Amino acid sequence: MRICVIGAGPSGLAQLRAFQSAKMKGEEIPEIVCYEKQADWGGLWRYDWRTGVDEYGNPCHGSMYRYLWSNGPKEGLEFADYSFDEHFGKPIASYPPRAVLFDYIEGRVKAAGVRDWIQFSTVVRDVSFDDSTGLFTVVARNCETDTETRETFDHVIVATGHFSVPNVPYYPGFESFNGRVLHAHDFRDAREFEGKDILILGTSYSAEDIGSQCWKYGAKSITVAHRTAPMGFDWPENWQEVPALVKVEGKTAFFKDGTSKEVDAIILCTGYKHHFPFLPDDLRLKTANRLAASDLYKGVVWVKNPKLFYLGMQDQWFTFNMFDAQAWWVRDCIMGKIALPDAAAMEADWKQRQADEDAVADDYGAIVYQGDYVKELIAETDYPSFNVDGANEAFFQWKKHKKKGIMTFRNHGYVSPLTGTMAPPHHTPWKDALDDSLESYLTAPEPVPGE
Amino acid sequence: MRICVIGAGPSGLAQLRAFQSAKMKGEEIPEIVCYEKQADWGGLWRYDWRTGVDEYGNPCHGSMYRYLWSNGPKEGLEFADYSFDEHFGKPIASYPPRAVLFDYIEGRVKAAGVRDWIQFSTVVRDVSFDDSTGLFTVVARNCETDTETRETFDHVIVATGHFSVPNVPYYPGFESFNGRVLHAHDFRDAREFEGKDILILGTSYSAEDIGSQCWKYGAKSITVAHRTAPMGFDWPENWQEVPALVKVEGKTAFFKDGTSKEVDAIILCTGYKHHFPFLPDDLRLKTANRLAASDLYKGVVWVKNPKLFYLGMQDQWFTFNMFDAQAWWVRDCIMGKIALPDAAAMEADWKQRQADEDAVADDYGAIVYQGDYVKELIAETDYPSFNVDGANEAFFQWKKHKKKGIMTFRNHGYVSPLTGTMAPPHHTPWKDALDDSLESYLTAPEPVPGE
Repeated sequence: MRICVIGAGPSGLAQLRAFQSAKMKGEEIPEIVCYEKQADWGGLWRYDWRTGVDEYGNPCHGSMYRYLWSNGPKEGLEFADYSFDEHFGKPIASYPPRAVLFDYIEGRVKAAGVRDWIQFSTVVRDVSFDDSTGLFTVVARNCETDTETRETFDHVIVATGHFSVPNVPYYPGFESFNGRVLHAHDFRDAREFEGKDILILGTSYSAEDIGSQCWKYGAKSITVAHRTAPMGFDWPENWQEVPALVKVEGKTAFFKDGTSKEVDAIILCTGYKHHFPFLPDDLRLKTANRLAASDLYKGVVWVKNPKLFYLGMQDQWFTFNMFDAQAWWVRDCIMGKIALPDAAAMEADWKQRQADEDAVADDYGAIVYQGDYVKELIAETDYPSFNVDGANEAFFQWKKHKKKGIMTFRNHGYVSPLTGTMAPPHHTPWKDALDDSLESYLTAPEPVPGE
Repeated sequence: MRICVIGAGPSGLAQLRAFQSAKMKGEEIPEIVCYEKQADWGGLWRYDWRTGVDEYGNPCHGSMYRYLWSNGPKEGLEFADYSFDEHFGKPIASYPPRAVLFDYIEGRVKAAGVRDWIQFSTVVRDVSFDDSTGLFTVVARNCETDTETRETFDHVIVATGHFSVPNVPYYPGFESFNGRVLHAHDFRDAREFEGKDILILGTSYSAEDIGSQCWKYGAKSITVAHRTAPMGFDWPENWQEVPALVKVEGKTAFFKDGTSKEVDAIILCTGYKHHFPFLPDDLRLKTANRLAASDLYKGVVWVKNPKLFYLGMQDQWFTFNMFDAQAWWVRDCIMGKIALPDAAAMEADWKQRQADEDAVADDYGAIVYQGDYVKELIAETDYPSFNVDGANEAFFQWKKHKKKGIMTFRNHGYVSPLTGTMAPPHHTPWKDALDDSLESYLTAPEPVPGE
């Protein structure tokens, strides 16, 4: 049996770790081939200075920007088989910058020794399924050698993420705006916008966090336009929320309430697309970005062809630990430990999940909903059980801390649902911590003489 | 017989016009299907404010920026079957801005009535050749309906251009540069760089023209780093040429001669790649950007499978008129009017062309070399003969005018190789003409009262 995993980000790596874990327990596992477009693993957590296309002409995967700190508590995403305490050898604060999370992700798979299963700088160009043989053919291009392979697999697991292909709306005047129009996907260094008037479109995490970054690194003003409702946090003085953008003329943005503002750059925080250019119609997931994705039994099995799986295609409160729960479940399904019901039951499953999601009252309910999904999956495999309610609690407090202070919430700490450790406060408040390196985060700063 | 044309830019449109021209003369032509990724025709000449990926998540084709004026004389690219005089109803100046050239390109194909042959917003995902049937299968995704078609064709003509996929080198420190790093492909509005210190890498057309644009629209300084030799034009006061970039630290760029410069943006004018992500290894052109491309008999026939053609894959002095010459020739080859020699002769052809190119002494020789190629092709079809030597002459003068004044060469005019008309001078010197619209270009400005 041969398995193809597409993508070596947090989801794909979870899948490799799941199989390696079974192997360590003495089980016979299938042959695993993982294709990764980037030159290294980590998916979005691998910082890439490039925007647009990569060194081989393929669209850049990276949406990550410099100075990014986790926007949710690390206690909500901790791997159940590999705690932060274990990796760093000591308790660390709750909102680590990117490099620290990358190090943590990498630490587990380095220890697992799965790097050899991955073909890097290799982009999947086509996947097709042959009804007569029951096998998938995967066409992949090794970009370093600029040659293609065409291999067959019993199963394909799509783990390419859904925060890499931007949704970019048009507004009248964009074609003649005298500044820069960019999507959050192409945002890299907030210092570029020092002293600038910034317009942000959108009200979700990208808007909130990129705006906060621009503020932290010295933007002159931040204006955020919303289509439905303002975010409503306690924004700093030079930050305003305005109604929807109507049009742009020259450098002036006009809003729905008749007001206007001259801006230097427009940052579109308008979301991402589920985009699978390598998949034909019959294998291609089409879903809204929601907690219960369409056409996926148990959130992972492609109901129209249950030999195909998708990981991490949901909108997310839970992340790394949910990908793990999914990966262990998919592994056991492939290894015959979990049986699939008939097509009608699988269809009913995702529809029921969507109905349940639609009945959720608010964000707190959504967190519990997704926590319950994680519980459901891990109950059916040997993935280490962990205190999901504890993770929920970290999320609840996070939301409250954000409400209390959008520029201070990252100064708080939470209890690990694995080790029970209470995270120490970070040595420097987030707004004053301009260095986002791992070294800076993990090391207490030298005392300044005289202070 | 069914023909697939991939791309509806100047090359693809030339191909449609070539077939339509034969049809107008009473000939029976094959069925033509043209797939175009963009929502409109014109290829690079369609301005796109987007960078990165387009509205459907596919890499943006557009490399065109605002305020671009032709960087070569229009007399060197005039369609032999459709003069500028005919299209505009009067003589116009020699270096039109983008919108004027787009209008000219569009005018001919509108008149030809070939728009119905084109499927817009449709990206080709795969092409394969079946030895047993002798047919190509082309998989194309209509991005508006998000569905795929899989159709067979007798011939495929690749006309997707090779100035859309940037070549983006890495230099140490790019990952922590505190400004913007972009490739020329993503450059859009020079006003974004008003008052800024700009570093440009490269010495070819993009470097020369984007630097000139930034200067024209008020950049504080322009520094151009070269790896081999400076461009050596009579640059303005705030423009300097420096040796190769070594590294970047913060916002400071360090050069090979030990000098350094603080800069706000780095624009990589480092060229483009021949990139065909929809083609398998056996059909995919791999060539340097040169006048005689590899593996193409007569510059257009894929020698490894002569049912496949490529248009416009050469580096270019001649452009629209050369694409025409190629398109008419390919048409006649497909329609059986031109016979292909055996494989060995086709192989010998492109190798001889490359040897001849290698023997060319300088740019003047290169212009004559490519002019001779155009002459060779048009002598074998009914494409209207035109005064290629006249076009060569326009190129020669252009080069001399550039040497005399890099910021004034566009104020000159040349003689049409078709109509013999001498182009009038433009109403405003290029450096003072900030409005790049068609209306502004074609209309004499209102006299200012009192002047």
